[in-house]
Amino acid sequence: MADPTRIWTAALIVIGDEILSGRTQDKNVGQIATWLNVQGIRLREVRVVADDSDAIIESVNILRARNDYLFTTGGIGPTHDDITVDAIAAALGVAVEVHPQARAMLASYYETRGGLTDARLRMARVPAGASLIENRMSGAPGIRHGNIFIMAGVPHITAGMLDSLTGTLEGGLPVLSATIGCWVAESEIADLLGAAERAHDGCQIGSYPFFREGRTGANFVVRSTDASALDQCVAALSAALEQGGWPVVPDGI
Amino acid sequence: MADPTRIWTAALIVIGDEILSGRTQDKNVGQIATWLNVQGIRLREVRVVADDSDAIIESVNILRARNDYLFTTGGIGPTHDDITVDAIAAALGVAVEVHPQARAMLASYYETRGGLTDARLRMARVPAGASLIENRMSGAPGIRHGNIFIMAGVPHITAGMLDSLTGTLEGGLPVLSATIGCWVAESEIADLLGAAERAHDGCQIGSYPFFREGRTGANFVVRSTDASALDQCVAALSAALEQGGWPVVPDGI
Repeated sequence: MADPTRIWTAALIVIGDEILSGRTQDKNVGQIATWLNVQGIRLREVRVVADDSDAIIESVNILRARNDYLFTTGGIGPTHDDITVDAIAAALGVAVEVHPQARAMLASYYETRGGLTDARLRMARVPAGASLIENRMSGAPGIRHGNIFIMAGVPHITAGMLDSLTGTLEGGLPVLSATIGCWVAESEIADLLGAAERAHDGCQIGSYPFFREGRTGANFVVRSTDASALDQCVAALSAALEQGGWPVVPDGI
Repeated sequence: MADPTRIWTAALIVIGDEILSGRTQDKNVGQIATWLNVQGIRLREVRVVADDSDAIIESVNILRARNDYLFTTGGIGPTHDDITVDAIAAALGVAVEVHPQARAMLASYYETRGGLTDARLRMARVPAGASLIENRMSGAPGIRHGNIFIMAGVPHITAGMLDSLTGTLEGGLPVLSATIGCWVAESEIADLLGAAERAHDGCQIGSYPFFREGRTGANFVVRSTDASALDQCVAALSAALEQGGWPVVPDGI
């Protein structure tokens, strides 16, 4: 049996000038992070880079080496600013080739939509040796090469690609989490939080303050791969807060 | 006079397990990117790292060296998971010290809120040699050390800190942009887009496809630091699209 304490990690590279210019709000970090956690894989680092070959190559080679999996989003469409496939092939030191199955998928998809032009055929190009990731939403597939998963930039297309990968990647224990909220300034209970984390091995406590309805509050998120340790930590933290005079809101505020 | 062709760059490190777990949707990338552009500074790279000292140190030292400015968000509160100041001090090889002015600000802010406890005093700690960034929203200031700007994780507090920095950082020409939209599959006009970009020096064209109201469309964003080049590129691209039979929607769809 696999080592249950083994931690599986992934990194994500978000490729796109539109995120760095502030024009577009990224939605892929959140959905990929959440999906990875269900697979028992932890998202360890995200980089957002420009549509710039050198920047993509550098980040691909660093992150694929130090993580079990590397995901990228963006830059796999048909236009001149879509350079992800070429940059990743360069990072891997392999040629770019037209994948026959991708070509067939695109030919079929565009049969009733004006035919397979040169621009559309660009979306069948892959780093040599790659396999495809199904895209139920539109014609162009995602691409897998070794531990690299090349996904679309448009969030609902990436969602479909993730769906088709569900259950296919080896992972470890998923990280469980529980949230409790409190109308308290986190600075008032900082010592209590630190003590609760130290007293519960294998649990991490995050503190997320907010200001809402004219009042200061915070949510405390306890994370662990061990359900029983998680429950004990939440119970102990809740008891300590209640004893201090701060009523706890289950599931957070 | 300064070189008008000089490009000023910034990087951003978003520090926080809550973003990498998918629990919290980041809002700082967009607001900092937009603000930087108005200052004439381009956001070149973003990294999202965990609440992990080694990860913060590595990214701080790489990104501060190759950009004019480095911003960080998150991890400057009073709790045990707030390790940004210590990690940045370690990256710089300097001690952590209590800043007397920050201490005075916090003492004043908490005078009517229960007093300045040890936990709250943590928010007056800075890497030795730092100056402060005003925070009009709550007691704890941001921190500047050389070309590093250490900001809050809570977006509205960071917004206030950015406001107090407005106009104080040297930058170059801001990047101007104009958007036009079209109900067209981007694969149909990929060649036309590439040709328009090649024909207009100093302009970049980004293509952002979408599927909405049951139809395929795309927005094209033209960017340039030269207003007249930008106008010419938009006019030429619009004319080419119209001639191809694709009506253009000014300002995008």
